Amino acid sequence: MDTIVREMRGCSRHIGRCYWFTGLSGAGKTTLANKFCEALRERGLTCLVLDGDVLRERLNRDLGFSREDRRENVRRIAEIAHMAAEAGVIVLVAVIAPYRADRDAVRGLFDDHRFFEVYVQTDIATCVARDPKQLYRLAREGELRDMTGLHTPYEVPVMPDIRIDTSQMTVEQSVSLLLEHSQGATAAF
Amino acid sequence: MDTIVREMRGCSRHIGRCYWFTGLSGAGKTTLANKFCEALRERGLTCLVLDGDVLRERLNRDLGFSREDRRENVRRIAEIAHMAAEAGVIVLVAVIAPYRADRDAVRGLFDDHRFFEVYVQTDIATCVARDPKQLYRLAREGELRDMTGLHTPYEVPVMPDIRIDTSQMTVEQSVSLLLEHSQGATAAF
Repeated sequence: MDTIVREMRGCSRHIGRCYWFTGLSGAGKTTLANKFCEALRERGLTCLVLDGDVLRERLNRDLGFSREDRRENVRRIAEIAHMAAEAGVIVLVAVIAPYRADRDAVRGLFDDHRFFEVYVQTDIATCVARDPKQLYRLAREGELRDMTGLHTPYEVPVMPDIRIDTSQMTVEQSVSLLLEHSQGATAAF
Repeated sequence: MDTIVREMRGCSRHIGRCYWFTGLSGAGKTTLANKFCEALRERGLTCLVLDGDVLRERLNRDLGFSREDRRENVRRIAEIAHMAAEAGVIVLVAVIAPYRADRDAVRGLFDDHRFFEVYVQTDIATCVARDPKQLYRLAREGELRDMTGLHTPYEVPVMPDIRIDTSQMTVEQSVSLLLEHSQGATAAF
């Protein structure tokens, strides 16, 4: 009975896992992570969003956008995500992580059933049209010289666990897809 | 009803808070944090231990023991603790954090009712006698030159929220004290 109550509480450590939303700036990573988090919280689960932009203002404020600093940015966030997931938290990371090698290193930290790469596959034309942070505009005007997808590569995921194209699916549809995955992942234990 | 179930699940975000165990090496910070965490998990709560030694091997492996690096070590851990606490996790930090200014900066990140300084007040003679990591021995032999309490200062907390002297109290007594505090802190919401 005690076990059932503990399961109900949704705090069992086996629930902990990481969804890493990768994709171009403007693809919808942060929006999806936040909405998915809200939905999980409504279901009583403990959920943590690690947003790349927020982390760069605080935890990783010492880092820039060189190849080495991008690797370090991803590495630190992965370490945090791993610790929190091990503790039973569902961690949603919204970080471009443009290099395949860095993403593979992240995956290597986790057990198989605790890490899921979510490729937010929205095409660059849609991202440029949205340009929520006006970064593409700044890049076009020459104010920004390290824009992923323009000046530096974005290496597309080869075998992501989940693909979402936000130019084809609404946020609600995307969150439903994620919730379905999440329920399957919990049931698999 | 739904609210009650959610409360029961112990995952409400208002439960999130941080206990920061500060004190000399060998005082019992890690032991207390781990045992307190076990006790909280048994009660269905989501709990994360951030241990200074573990973090220095991974997240903070780029940092040494200079004044500046010690500040950065504390700063990063505080940022993580803050994020996780905001997400509803009870975060237990076991990190010496020898400088008062650094600890005050940590406290400043949190709302009042979300941060508790736990001064593990065990005297240095007891710590040296325990010497679990053989650091005092290495320091005495001249192999270690930045040992807190010997070569560099440990500024004792002036107004900690909780004091525990593990040379006077057993681990079980200490955990009871912490659990009592934790129940009070939850009830205060």
